[in-house]
Amino acid sequence: MTLPDYGTQGYKSILVSLDGGVAVVTINRPEQRNTFAGTLPEELIAAFDLLDRDDRVRVVVLTADPKAPAYCSGADITGGWGAIIYSEASQKEGLQAHRDGGGKVSLAIFRCRKITVAAVNGHVAGIGFTGLTIPLDFRFIWSGAKISVPFIRRGISAEAASTYLLPRLIGYSKAAGILLSGGTFTPDSPYMNGLFHQTLPTREDVFPAALAFAKELAANTSQTSVAWTKLLLWRGADTMEEQHILDSRALRELAAGHDATEGAKAFMERRKVKFTDTLSKNLSSWIPWWREIDVNYRRAKL
Amino acid sequence: MTLPDYGTQGYKSILVSLDGGVAVVTINRPEQRNTFAGTLPEELIAAFDLLDRDDRVRVVVLTADPKAPAYCSGADITGGWGAIIYSEASQKEGLQAHRDGGGKVSLAIFRCRKITVAAVNGHVAGIGFTGLTIPLDFRFIWSGAKISVPFIRRGISAEAASTYLLPRLIGYSKAAGILLSGGTFTPDSPYMNGLFHQTLPTREDVFPAALAFAKELAANTSQTSVAWTKLLLWRGADTMEEQHILDSRALRELAAGHDATEGAKAFMERRKVKFTDTLSKNLSSWIPWWREIDVNYRRAKL
Amino acid sequence: MTLPDYGTQGYKSILVSLDGGVAVVTINRPEQRNTFAGTLPEELIAAFDLLDRDDRVRVVVLTADPKAPAYCSGADITGGWGAIIYSEASQKEGLQAHRDGGGKVSLAIFRCRKITVAAVNGHVAGIGFTGLTIPLDFRFIWSGAKISVPFIRRGISAEAASTYLLPRLIGYSKAAGILLSGGTFTPDSPYMNGLFHQTLPTREDVFPAALAFAKELAANTSQTSVAWTKLLLWRGADTMEEQHILDSRALRELAAGHDATEGAKAFMERRKVKFTDTLSKNLSSWIPWWREIDVNYRRAKL
Repeated sequence: MTLPDYGTQGYKSILVSLDGGVAVVTINRPEQRNTFAGTLPEELIAAFDLLDRDDRVRVVVLTADPKAPAYCSGADITGGWGAIIYSEASQKEGLQAHRDGGGKVSLAIFRCRKITVAAVNGHVAGIGFTGLTIPLDFRFIWSGAKISVPFIRRGISAEAASTYLLPRLIGYSKAAGILLSGGTFTPDSPYMNGLFHQTLPTREDVFPAALAFAKELAANTSQTSVAWTKLLLWRGADTMEEQHILDSRALRELAAGHDATEGAKAFMERRKVKFTDTLSKNLSSWIPWWREIDVNYRRAKL
Repeated sequence: MTLPDYGTQGYKSILVSLDGGVAVVTINRPEQRNTFAGTLPEELIAAFDLLDRDDRVRVVVLTADPKAPAYCSGADITGGWGAIIYSEASQKEGLQAHRDGGGKVSLAIFRCRKITVAAVNGHVAGIGFTGLTIPLDFRFIWSGAKISVPFIRRGISAEAASTYLLPRLIGYSKAAGILLSGGTFTPDSPYMNGLFHQTLPTREDVFPAALAFAKELAANTSQTSVAWTKLLLWRGADTMEEQHILDSRALRELAAGHDATEGAKAFMERRKVKFTDTLSKNLSSWIPWWREIDVNYRRAKL
Repeated sequence: MTLPDYGTQGYKSILVSLDGGVAVVTINRPEQRNTFAGTLPEELIAAFDLLDRDDRVRVVVLTADPKAPAYCSGADITGGWGAIIYSEASQKEGLQAHRDGGGKVSLAIFRCRKITVAAVNGHVAGIGFTGLTIPLDFRFIWSGAKISVPFIRRGISAEAASTYLLPRLIGYSKAAGILLSGGTFTPDSPYMNGLFHQTLPTREDVFPAALAFAKELAANTSQTSVAWTKLLLWRGADTMEEQHILDSRALRELAAGHDATEGAKAFMERRKVKFTDTLSKNLSSWIPWWREIDVNYRRAKL
């Protein structure tokens, strides 16, 4: 692929920068309290799709300006849920034609084969939590952040595939506790236990900590190793036996790459690694091994 | 449906009351140490089935008299396991005809589409834990409660589908730790971490705390939102993509209801919500989307 | 089966002893820092397979000499990953013929129907964690143990079916946190929360604590109850309903055994149990109910 220039993508609701293997995506709608509206959803989808495919990128950090009123204050419901959920397609084609905008973003982040890090440096509500916090691999958060998950108190249900992700991330007990209380939580809530990599005392501390973590990983991890590990985790088998067959093949294919040779060599020589394998050149044609699902609605034929 | 009068159901082992959207089911066999025996199992099944369908009910609290010797002291094994497990059907029709009495109750509670809250205000043993504690959405408990899970020390295995629920609720590590040690735990045991919403210092504190929690939820949550969220959690898909398609449809259908309009409006007007949608009138005909399984044994034909 | 004499199996890399229902397997390659190499993998597989079938064994403890440099310091990569991963079969038959050596050991431990206890009395790295720590039912560890999980920093992916086990044991959030950071952890790391039964202050404390725990379980638990519970946990159904049908049958079959009668009787008589049912005589012919998978590569036909 021609390497994209993130400065010329015409983003209006996000900023994207790339430095030494780390891409930083900044939610940039401070005047709208960083609501999940306007061009934000489509730009996040486009950006994560691009970052997933850009070989220069090893780690993606998602954050917001710490001076914005919130990391993401959720959907803009001033016009009611209908304005958000009654997509044109579903009006014309029926209920089954609707695809949740939050879920589209969740999926784009979830499908990114690079390490993803959320630097949650402000309050989060609704989709700010379900779509822009939980789908990332690592979550850094401000200790003072209010996390509101009010779906059942607003007449809708938890969305963005959060009913899939949350019980897997932290167990059904805590996931149900969060989603069926509809409460507002702080990062030290027992229900949030296990969800955050690090909790920082001030809003300003969050991004630098996440960035330092991201840079260290970008410098020292193999892009193909990371992708295989994420795929084995999330696209794995239903039994130990099948997983053993899957990861045997993963290991055998990785062992044929440069990064495995370099990884062992650098370890023996007690020096820094220089990984060069990339997803576009070195990821097995054997991927995907799972049943891929096209989530787009197939328009009824004329 | 004609609204049931819980005072005239002829319950002998439980008490059922209904007040402002909250139903309270009280285990009422104090002279038998609240053992899981007599009419208790069948009455619990009948009550939870009724409460699931009764539109007036938004939250169900299960508790016991705090002066009873236990919240539930498990099965009555004075006659051995055989007296409990050798059901008449299995004697006549063979082993495969048996259906575990604890599991029938677990299933009735698990299938209830309202928010369910256990107010565990005393000791629990065996089925008191697996059937009357873990299948509910929220668990309040007395800090002094002894939780005995002795199956492997009594020559049987964990029942009531607890080998399904417990690993999902808190992970396989803690679930195996509990079930394969056969130990007696207190609520602050590391193995119980994440299972309880709140731990109260005295037996008398448990029910009032659970009731206040239940009342707040009953006043402020949508019945249809709750049902959809529970079903998306427990009847969800195996992949993010399929869950995205599922919850997109859930949201689209909820957005067409009164509660979604009211939820957004009340939020904008900074006032209390008045939710009116009900399961009998407003739950989609699209439910169930999952493969329903009839657990009844189909008697061999004559 | 003829009862095996563990002293005459010709093990070179492990020691195996049996005392009162507890088998102790000691990793015995101190001069090679207990690396996962030489005859160690094949001997562990053979031993766990034998212990699984030996009716005298109720609990298996896996440990190492506390004076060894490590409990297990991982693979020996002095010759690079290739020397480990390029099995002869895969050289001749192609990539798909490879079977990960770590996964073979993980599977042997995972499949053991007895209670398994890891006494991790030293540092662990790589396969020492994924293969020799997490697949056991209970984990005792030295508080000073360094747990290195560096796969993505060495150019390979997490193996030994750890991408199956770890998210199930402690949730995807912590599992991803461990595997996608490639970090070195101590037992008190938040990512390790819920994984260990007990953390001991010195290396010398670990094995005695694990052994005492094992002896108590061996004396007081039913072999058939344990096997059924492990199988219901790990070979369980996808829905509550199916699990209810499964465990109903398990209970009905256990109730027909001696151990269930003895378990109830001993409880009523307030005396110690004497369990005598064994897997070879008393485990249902109904097992396996799940789809068994042959993980061996079927050699391409001549």
